[in-house]
Amino acid sequence: MIDNYPTRLPHAIAPIPRIEPTVWGTVADGPLNQGDLDGYSDAGHMLRRNTISDILIPELDDELRNIAASLDTADPRIIREADGSIRSIFEPHLISSVVKQIAELDTVLPVAQQLLGGDVYIHQARINYMSAFSSTGFYWHSDFETWHAEDGMPTMRAVSCVIALTENYPHNGTLMTITGTNRTFYPCVGATPASNHATSLAGQTVGIPDRETLTRAATRGINQFVGPAGTGFWFDCNTLHGSGSNITPFPRSNLFLVFNSVDNRLVEPFAAPGPRPDYLGAR
Amino acid sequence: MIDNYPTRLPHAIAPIPRIEPTVWGTVADGPLNQGDLDGYSDAGHMLRRNTISDILIPELDDELRNIAASLDTADPRIIREADGSIRSIFEPHLISSVVKQIAELDTVLPVAQQLLGGDVYIHQARINYMSAFSSTGFYWHSDFETWHAEDGMPTMRAVSCVIALTENYPHNGTLMTITGTNRTFYPCVGATPASNHATSLAGQTVGIPDRETLTRAATRGINQFVGPAGTGFWFDCNTLHGSGSNITPFPRSNLFLVFNSVDNRLVEPFAAPGPRPDYLGAR
Repeated sequence: MIDNYPTRLPHAIAPIPRIEPTVWGTVADGPLNQGDLDGYSDAGHMLRRNTISDILIPELDDELRNIAASLDTADPRIIREADGSIRSIFEPHLISSVVKQIAELDTVLPVAQQLLGGDVYIHQARINYMSAFSSTGFYWHSDFETWHAEDGMPTMRAVSCVIALTENYPHNGTLMTITGTNRTFYPCVGATPASNHATSLAGQTVGIPDRETLTRAATRGINQFVGPAGTGFWFDCNTLHGSGSNITPFPRSNLFLVFNSVDNRLVEPFAAPGPRPDYLGAR
Repeated sequence: MIDNYPTRLPHAIAPIPRIEPTVWGTVADGPLNQGDLDGYSDAGHMLRRNTISDILIPELDDELRNIAASLDTADPRIIREADGSIRSIFEPHLISSVVKQIAELDTVLPVAQQLLGGDVYIHQARINYMSAFSSTGFYWHSDFETWHAEDGMPTMRAVSCVIALTENYPHNGTLMTITGTNRTFYPCVGATPASNHATSLAGQTVGIPDRETLTRAATRGINQFVGPAGTGFWFDCNTLHGSGSNITPFPRSNLFLVFNSVDNRLVEPFAAPGPRPDYLGAR
């Protein structure tokens, strides 16, 4: 298989224009109108209010506590901050019927199918917690860069649906995306260490564009995902994103559902010694 | 002199309602109208567009480079980040005639005189730089708590005027204030170490309210200072404020001018071994 998006290289190479489209379906294929599709294709992200209804939010909140309580503390699907607090829980859709049900909502699954042009499956799902006062955030990266290099995802035909479980403010470490970066692949310098995922989920050291690249990439500015609990935010697998610190008294948590096209199933990793566990990249 | 605002204590004590007013002057005393004065008194902060005109900004930008270049690298008025980059330069108004001129603008000095009800002087001035990509921000504190404890400022009759020298976005580590906290003094636990200022300007360890206090203090929410270069932001000496990290490619810098009433001159520190240098608290 030809590697159109080389990365984790010994030397820097120029950015590579995206080959495949960002939007694979048409207006006829789902709930999004042409304006929605064009906007998403152009910016690489899209806000959707009321993705989860107010009725479902308290039920989900209970369910999240249940998930956290039900897992063994040594479960590798739990990622912790340096202080021991939970940062992420992976595979919530396989643990909780409520989370599974959310992935199948009319505001979720048909949108993913329309954006990706056909049947989809969940490549990865997680709940991200950002605790109040001391969370440090996460630096800029493209998910596709990681999924291509470490999971063997062949093409850019995947999308993340983020659903706010608490209000996301502009000041409490919300998800930021760099507008329009879905359209360019930024190859990164540095080989993938063995078992990189054991540390990379708390803070990446490879797969990070350099500062000059980020500066040039940000000419169209930075977007913040802001909205009350239940708000949905979709971003393309290749859109550069990150988050700042949270020193406010307001924790935030989001559910991430990553959909991949069934025509884009994982192969061997393109730039890593071996594949990651299934809870990070379903096979 | 009676200490109405005890702090740096061995044990926690309850918050103390503010005794003196936030606004000392009246509508007759300056350019602010009754709505401005009431809003500032209530919230503890106030945004003022076009505090510096577009014409003055490029001149100031040049002048800031001149100031940075003119100082000896060991000058104690320069505060650096861990990586050596400049975080703050103190006393720019005594080094640069352009900065002095800004403090005397019709959009600045008369506002300070009106808020504080009479003649004022500059207690402290600084330029704060927040570099792109890696700035870590500054945790919540009340300036008055420090100025009272370490500089001997008797009462809450001082105000900070912040002027944006670059655009302040909601995502690049902008100044956050906790609405309405000007009205309560939050005594802090922990004695002031000797020469605390030698380290506290890069990151405070004393003079920080605990997390429960901050959570209760934030019921009216958090305000961000956002605006293009030239925008002014006034906040009361006792308003709790802080800033998050900046991982964006957009550095930001602000000029801080702290005005104090001539009737509120410094005395001996209320909770520190000795006074700080003049560039931190003018005597």
